[in-house]
Amino acid sequence: MAEVKNSETRITLIGSGTIGLSLAALHLAHLTRPEQLCIYDTRSDIREYVHFTLPQYLPPRQHGLAKDIRIASTLESAVENATIIQEQGPESLSFKSSLWPEVEKLAPGDALFWSSTSGIPASAQAVNMKDPSRLLVVHPYNPPHIMPLLELVPSSQTDQRVIDRTLAFWRARGRSPVVIKKEYTGFVANRLAFALLRESIHLVNAGLVTVEELDRIVETSMGPRWAVSGPFKSYHAGGGKDGLEGFFRNIGGTVQRCWDDSGKVNVGDEWEKNVFQQTREIYGDVDVDWRDRTTKKVLEAVDNEKSLT
Amino acid sequence: MAEVKNSETRITLIGSGTIGLSLAALHLAHLTRPEQLCIYDTRSDIREYVHFTLPQYLPPRQHGLAKDIRIASTLESAVENATIIQEQGPESLSFKSSLWPEVEKLAPGDALFWSSTSGIPASAQAVNMKDPSRLLVVHPYNPPHIMPLLELVPSSQTDQRVIDRTLAFWRARGRSPVVIKKEYTGFVANRLAFALLRESIHLVNAGLVTVEELDRIVETSMGPRWAVSGPFKSYHAGGGKDGLEGFFRNIGGTVQRCWDDSGKVNVGDEWEKNVFQQTREIYGDVDVDWRDRTTKKVLEAVDNEKSLT
Repeated sequence: MAEVKNSETRITLIGSGTIGLSLAALHLAHLTRPEQLCIYDTRSDIREYVHFTLPQYLPPRQHGLAKDIRIASTLESAVENATIIQEQGPESLSFKSSLWPEVEKLAPGDALFWSSTSGIPASAQAVNMKDPSRLLVVHPYNPPHIMPLLELVPSSQTDQRVIDRTLAFWRARGRSPVVIKKEYTGFVANRLAFALLRESIHLVNAGLVTVEELDRIVETSMGPRWAVSGPFKSYHAGGGKDGLEGFFRNIGGTVQRCWDDSGKVNVGDEWEKNVFQQTREIYGDVDVDWRDRTTKKVLEAVDNEKSLT
Repeated sequence: MAEVKNSETRITLIGSGTIGLSLAALHLAHLTRPEQLCIYDTRSDIREYVHFTLPQYLPPRQHGLAKDIRIASTLESAVENATIIQEQGPESLSFKSSLWPEVEKLAPGDALFWSSTSGIPASAQAVNMKDPSRLLVVHPYNPPHIMPLLELVPSSQTDQRVIDRTLAFWRARGRSPVVIKKEYTGFVANRLAFALLRESIHLVNAGLVTVEELDRIVETSMGPRWAVSGPFKSYHAGGGKDGLEGFFRNIGGTVQRCWDDSGKVNVGDEWEKNVFQQTREIYGDVDVDWRDRTTKKVLEAVDNEKSLT
């Protein structure tokens, strides 16, 4: 099945939190008319809220579009003509597993069903669906209007054509979708980040560095390195002519010693008080606009150098 | 003790591998005359090697400087007038613990002694020194002429004035030195990177993604994010008004589940064959020049946005 043309795409977002509005901004950048985008949310002030909040995610020349997107007042009117239904409602299995059978009843037969969940697998969300092959997880990295990654996590029942159409959709928008081959707690990106976070907490807790110093270490070493080439490529380059194998031959002993005594802190342990407090005192309210603007420049710098090769 | 003026700084590098030449390039950018830099190495072709290889680390307008730096033929002539002695010789305790007592005998009494080791603590390197208070580890992130981070790892015997002078030196050069408060296997940066690497290997080994997909995930999500704001600041921003504490309240359950079943692969295990082979096949010879040029642009993008605030 060929993907419908961009001017015929009709996307419905279910849920209008931070992720929902950021996705709205991303979609608006690629749709022909703002009316092709619909938001459905049960909050009573949804129209005022979207008109007021969405412009914060949009470039100035698009601010006006916020008032032209469609706000649906019922699930039926939200999905009945949609080609894509993208859900970022509450992270609750009961919400999602009740939602999809309803959507399935009301939406066109070939509409794509995407969940932005960071933790509830498509197989669990689809338990009450007649046709679970239509659903997959499309997990964005926050905020999706800036970050290129989308983790596509199908269940074992998801139809390959649904996966292919989803891949084609995101690739056509210049994003970076990756299909995760198994449903797995936390998928891939968060698992990687949480592994580094755990060791970060351990090292701060052990008194080696402060929260601020740890962040600065990451910002001035592996952050910029990994923005350019991921861990395997980096260590492959670091291993000389024998690549990654040479790297492990040279310093595998140190790597293993670090792994052996890596920190096993847990959520709720004693570190929380100290680490939460330090973080609050140093950062207060983070300037997210600055972060997003700067992240965009970083991504543009890499893209630009890629295009020059 | 006030740091000597830049025009009076005389730096001797012991060891001329990748790190040594990269440090040479970094120092040359800040010294008044190339003769203030000296390289000592036991390889017989050291002069030709430096003249031929060092320019690869230098901007074109500085290529000519490579032939003007001093090449010492004995340790005595290398260190007798130095204000800083920076060692990146073989990663062997016997080498380093024999070197420093010699250097101590031959160098001026107030010269700074720095080791670039990634794993051998200053306390162990200093066992044969008369005055172990003069030595500390100054661990660069590779390649140091590009990456801003320097991990300063004093032993418990290192003199605070030695630490302060070292900090002042690197700050004056616009780098990002961080003092690590305890000697600890792998220090901080490598421990963090290795924690993420271990989970990366696990996820590739478990068949969730390929080596290339894993790298792309990092390059399009946490890489650019952490180039801009480190993990604590990022999750603090992600937790809404309650910051990092709010983040853990919201998704601490998922974080803990990811931690509980994180991959415990080890060096030498079965994953190596598959992961080494995939990496070799995908990347072959990495274009390190492109990587370094692009990393520089990324760092400049962040610095530029910082200067605008």
